[in-house]
Amino acid sequence: MGCVQSFREICDRQKNTNVRLSLPAVCFVWQTAMIILFGVFIRYNEESDTHWVEHRKANNISSDIENDFYFRYPSFQDVHVMIFVGFGFLMTFLKRYSFGAVGFNFLIAAFGLQWALLMQGWFHSLDYTDGKIKIGVENLINADFCVAGCLIAYGAVLGKVSPVQLMVMTLFGVTLFAVEEYIILNLIHARDAGGSMVIHTFGGYYGLSISWMLYRPNLDQSSRLQGSCYHSDVFAMIGTLFLWMFWPSFNSAITDHGDGQHRAAINTYLALASTVLTTVAISSLFQKHGKLDMVHIQNSTLAGGVAVGTAAEFMLMPYGSLIVGFCCGIISTLGYIYLTPFMEKHLKIQDTCGIHNLHAMPGVIGGIVGAITAAAATESVYGREGLVNTFDFEGAFKDMVPTRQGGHQAAGLCVAICFGIGGGILVGCILRLPIWGDAADDNCFDDESYWELPEDEESVPPILQYNNHMRNKDQSSTHCSSTK
Amino acid sequence: MGCVQSFREICDRQKNTNVRLSLPAVCFVWQTAMIILFGVFIRYNEESDTHWVEHRKANNISSDIENDFYFRYPSFQDVHVMIFVGFGFLMTFLKRYSFGAVGFNFLIAAFGLQWALLMQGWFHSLDYTDGKIKIGVENLINADFCVAGCLIAYGAVLGKVSPVQLMVMTLFGVTLFAVEEYIILNLIHARDAGGSMVIHTFGGYYGLSISWMLYRPNLDQSSRLQGSCYHSDVFAMIGTLFLWMFWPSFNSAITDHGDGQHRAAINTYLALASTVLTTVAISSLFQKHGKLDMVHIQNSTLAGGVAVGTAAEFMLMPYGSLIVGFCCGIISTLGYIYLTPFMEKHLKIQDTCGIHNLHAMPGVIGGIVGAITAAAATESVYGREGLVNTFDFEGAFKDMVPTRQGGHQAAGLCVAICFGIGGGILVGCILRLPIWGDAADDNCFDDESYWELPEDEESVPPILQYNNHMRNKDQSSTHCSSTK
Amino acid sequence: MGCVQSFREICDRQKNTNVRLSLPAVCFVWQTAMIILFGVFIRYNEESDTHWVEHRKANNISSDIENDFYFRYPSFQDVHVMIFVGFGFLMTFLKRYSFGAVGFNFLIAAFGLQWALLMQGWFHSLDYTDGKIKIGVENLINADFCVAGCLIAYGAVLGKVSPVQLMVMTLFGVTLFAVEEYIILNLIHARDAGGSMVIHTFGGYYGLSISWMLYRPNLDQSSRLQGSCYHSDVFAMIGTLFLWMFWPSFNSAITDHGDGQHRAAINTYLALASTVLTTVAISSLFQKHGKLDMVHIQNSTLAGGVAVGTAAEFMLMPYGSLIVGFCCGIISTLGYIYLTPFMEKHLKIQDTCGIHNLHAMPGVIGGIVGAITAAAATESVYGREGLVNTFDFEGAFKDMVPTRQGGHQAAGLCVAICFGIGGGILVGCILRLPIWGDAADDNCFDDESYWELPEDEESVPPILQYNNHMRNKDQSSTHCSSTK
Repeated sequence: MGCVQSFREICDRQKNTNVRLSLPAVCFVWQTAMIILFGVFIRYNEESDTHWVEHRKANNISSDIENDFYFRYPSFQDVHVMIFVGFGFLMTFLKRYSFGAVGFNFLIAAFGLQWALLMQGWFHSLDYTDGKIKIGVENLINADFCVAGCLIAYGAVLGKVSPVQLMVMTLFGVTLFAVEEYIILNLIHARDAGGSMVIHTFGGYYGLSISWMLYRPNLDQSSRLQGSCYHSDVFAMIGTLFLWMFWPSFNSAITDHGDGQHRAAINTYLALASTVLTTVAISSLFQKHGKLDMVHIQNSTLAGGVAVGTAAEFMLMPYGSLIVGFCCGIISTLGYIYLTPFMEKHLKIQDTCGIHNLHAMPGVIGGIVGAITAAAATESVYGREGLVNTFDFEGAFKDMVPTRQGGHQAAGLCVAICFGIGGGILVGCILRLPIWGDAADDNCFDDESYWELPEDEESVPPILQYNNHMRNKDQSSTHCSSTK
Repeated sequence: MGCVQSFREICDRQKNTNVRLSLPAVCFVWQTAMIILFGVFIRYNEESDTHWVEHRKANNISSDIENDFYFRYPSFQDVHVMIFVGFGFLMTFLKRYSFGAVGFNFLIAAFGLQWALLMQGWFHSLDYTDGKIKIGVENLINADFCVAGCLIAYGAVLGKVSPVQLMVMTLFGVTLFAVEEYIILNLIHARDAGGSMVIHTFGGYYGLSISWMLYRPNLDQSSRLQGSCYHSDVFAMIGTLFLWMFWPSFNSAITDHGDGQHRAAINTYLALASTVLTTVAISSLFQKHGKLDMVHIQNSTLAGGVAVGTAAEFMLMPYGSLIVGFCCGIISTLGYIYLTPFMEKHLKIQDTCGIHNLHAMPGVIGGIVGAITAAAATESVYGREGLVNTFDFEGAFKDMVPTRQGGHQAAGLCVAICFGIGGGILVGCILRLPIWGDAADDNCFDDESYWELPEDEESVPPILQYNNHMRNKDQSSTHCSSTK
Repeated sequence: MGCVQSFREICDRQKNTNVRLSLPAVCFVWQTAMIILFGVFIRYNEESDTHWVEHRKANNISSDIENDFYFRYPSFQDVHVMIFVGFGFLMTFLKRYSFGAVGFNFLIAAFGLQWALLMQGWFHSLDYTDGKIKIGVENLINADFCVAGCLIAYGAVLGKVSPVQLMVMTLFGVTLFAVEEYIILNLIHARDAGGSMVIHTFGGYYGLSISWMLYRPNLDQSSRLQGSCYHSDVFAMIGTLFLWMFWPSFNSAITDHGDGQHRAAINTYLALASTVLTTVAISSLFQKHGKLDMVHIQNSTLAGGVAVGTAAEFMLMPYGSLIVGFCCGIISTLGYIYLTPFMEKHLKIQDTCGIHNLHAMPGVIGGIVGAITAAAATESVYGREGLVNTFDFEGAFKDMVPTRQGGHQAAGLCVAICFGIGGGILVGCILRLPIWGDAADDNCFDDESYWELPEDEESVPPILQYNNHMRNKDQSSTHCSSTK
């Protein structure tokens, strides 16, 4: 701690948010690198290549409709919407950081998915005959998943970092993700279709650790901008709802064809419905006069989808999904009420969007639910073939049994947590270097730093312009309506 | 009427909008009940169960792609978006009730779909061998449909009821829906794929009857909040467009595989296109200076989708769809101009969103169009097999002929109207009890009652804060821009 | 030019924006004409007709899932969202023209798609045995595509024309589109699945030419309304993101079943990702202090999708897609910085949304990329069958070779440009007639002209109302927050 503290002091400096050289440099160089690496490594797979016709005949596939594209493309598009509109708009709730929320989310997702195609490709889709990565629609989904981990982490540091820092965070985040994913899914042989462990637990702790490393003791100087305004809260609901609605597609996007996708969608649909009710209940119960808090409705209603991620493809049963959602709505909302302020005050973790309550905790719960459900699987419930298919007890793992699978699931969860925390501390160190162009403590949560803002002044009548001129800028600048 | 009047007086009381005990209690108890009932009754069906592999082989199904999931999941997701974003955002048009619109819509839909899975399951998906309800993607779509009926009713009482009342309204609404649906589809053997009768007519009259029972003579005291503001109208267009675009999926989601889904989508697409033009025409023609009214564009453009619901799967013909849309755009817009004020003044029905013009009337038209189209069906147009498939002239109804089917369709429409009005009056009585926490007449359409609102004041310059302090709160509070 | 100039002077007149007679008349008459023409010409095709069952058996189709509906409907819905939400919200960026942006977009798209079904049907789907146009889901997609061309053109004249002018522009635009599409795709036998040439190049130059013909020398009198405000920029991001996310569906919607759709989606996904990074880089590099400009983020990030439209179905290779996106992000952003002001000042082309940078230039680049990729195609890369399938070297074109195909692609591009410019000048002449109800130069970009606006005044405190009354209306009227 002492070492960390002094490192922090070393990095304190006069802040300069001018990224005119660093941001274009990073974008150009990294995008050029992507082109070169794609040129060397990435090709179409047999289902997206013009040789598909021959492949079809050779493999006796009766119709084009059996191309994986038709199994997964609708889910892919739903996931794509979650990544760009869902995450992007969920973060627009701050009254004066909507451009940064949706814009930087757009930037890092667009970069991250390219890097993810490479990193995940090397681990999972490398064709050893020619050393090329062969990609199809499933790779696109996995790249979006990988990016989701980094966007979760963005939630913790929203408004406090520069776009260059976000790019660095994404570069390392995707790399760490691909490694932990390979360890968890391939080496440990845990199942995690919806990514409770691989995506949410990892992404959550990765972001929290970075936020801890980047602790800003004087962040209250920006407190005037740390809240929402009426319309920004409505914008955030666009994000919430698209995440909520498409989460069944998220959890079912890469599960087995047929019953696997079908069941995962049903389980997620139910868990999410249940979460909404307990979130509303707790939000009302713990507020003065029983009024609901938009922060809870925007975030905690999604916790059920996170927590059912691992077990969604198992025979969790419809009531099991409801129970998972029930508990997560409660835990997540209580987290916003008690845990977030506690973490900020005592653990020095400033979590702008409360990702600990929405991703990290529900992710851990999801890992545990997955382990229990796997350990409790029986042939009478799954059927002989169903058990083998669902848990992929094939190849090197053909002697696996459900109880041991439960242990592997738990091991996978531990790996995700370790990678998240360890990786976050490492990357947090890098991000403390005084070269990234992040804003000073009294200038956070403000789009002014990185965006040309529309000059709303020109529409202000003279008397107000005079007032504007007179008053302290700190107290007045907001884009939200102000006559309430 | 006299009896109703005195009942109203009995229920008049000092309003208290504190729902801190009632709302959490309802959410917790009902969600717990759902878990128990799901535990007892609900299981996966053969297409979402791990036994699918065996089922596939036993039934000689050549590929996983023939799992019903792939026929219906894209449509399901579109319907899901309509329910949560479509209905939710359509109702955000009020300047100061956007949280309530999108938030309570979210709450009651999430509860309603669980209850609908049970209620519809008992009627339609009960497996008599083991007494369980077996669910798959089609059940999810039907649950969303069922919820749509209640959300339509919410439109009539928007801003005037408490969340607890909405939950009660949804509980009874779903129950009534499941019964009338069973009577109309199974006993009467009417066809209603897009739910013109079952969803829109029922939901519309259900909501209007409740609104009539809850008549507020002094609602004009809230008139300052009953309008829209510029940005809230743009938010509402998000709802309008997602409803409009995905309506073809709504009307085709549960029609027959193959040509049934294909035809229903085409008919709905065309009817909706036609409605837009006549809505614009009437809106411009009946306003001073030919200016368009956003209320019409937001709502009446959707009437064609409602009215083509029943007949969309029939051979309505492309020009038939256009004609239906043409008429509904006119009728619905005229309804907003003349009928809504008339109903409020003379019939004591206060219809916040104008659901009579958007759902009730077009729903009745849709029922009539369905009856006529069915009665006019001939073997020369449909083909022998096509006729049997389209109207499901099988089993107990294998001797049915088109003309008689037309009569059954008309009978179904009457049942929907009766259930809507009767159920609405019954539920309206219950909702008048002085225990539900609804707002007083001068406090309607105001999120203040049930939501923690962002404190926009902190950003107001001193001179304005002083003004804010001085002026009558009633006249000033709005989140919309106010310097125009 | 002199002739054009004097024509302009002839058409100058006192402007009157009252469209109370013309707009309803156009809507009613044209919609009635549509009904009659649909009645005479349009029927269901064999996949959406009740005879599908018999067709299936006769053609030995094993399952309903092979109905084209299941291949294309998810893509169709994505395209539909792009047309109505994508284009509609992208144009809401103006602070006071959001109703017109999203509302008129809605109107002309709803009309255009009906007219497109007829025009394209006569050229492509006419059944010569009975003289009827047979439609299915692919026709709906093509109608949406055709409409896209007109919506692009709307972007150039946004805020400067009346809804009646827009209807006329759409009527002619769809007609011209259908002819040039027939020439390019059928006579010249160019391939253009994503419409770089047919849609974007044509639509772009069509709109620019109209805007040139409608040049307003005193448009700076409306300059107070020509910018965005904070929330209108966030609304516009909704449009941007839905266009960006669903562009893979746009470019793959009508490509070949199987690998064709699969590959087009992958290429578009990659090109768009690459564009985001170079757009951000250029935007930051060319602004003071490295701040990003929302105009670039909203528009230039989409240029990669346009430019990869033609070649997306070819073996462009993943790195090829990245390169195309890389270049287009740079060119498009530089276009906004240098070319748009230049064109306004020196060429008298006022391009409200910068469609030259987003559609016209990238469309031309897309045509060139398509020609090069086609000319470079080899049997070793595509496979013998793959080459024939991808370029459709069948029937009258069975002797075609890739190099010659490249020439045909280039010829197609020229046709698109000629039709765009020629058609635009012609239609621009018509639109200069003094009968269309467009606004005066000092009243552009203002919803006041054609919409009943919500009376935000009622919520203004007395002191402000007084101020409102006193001050010059020109300087004050805006719906955006004004206390910043």
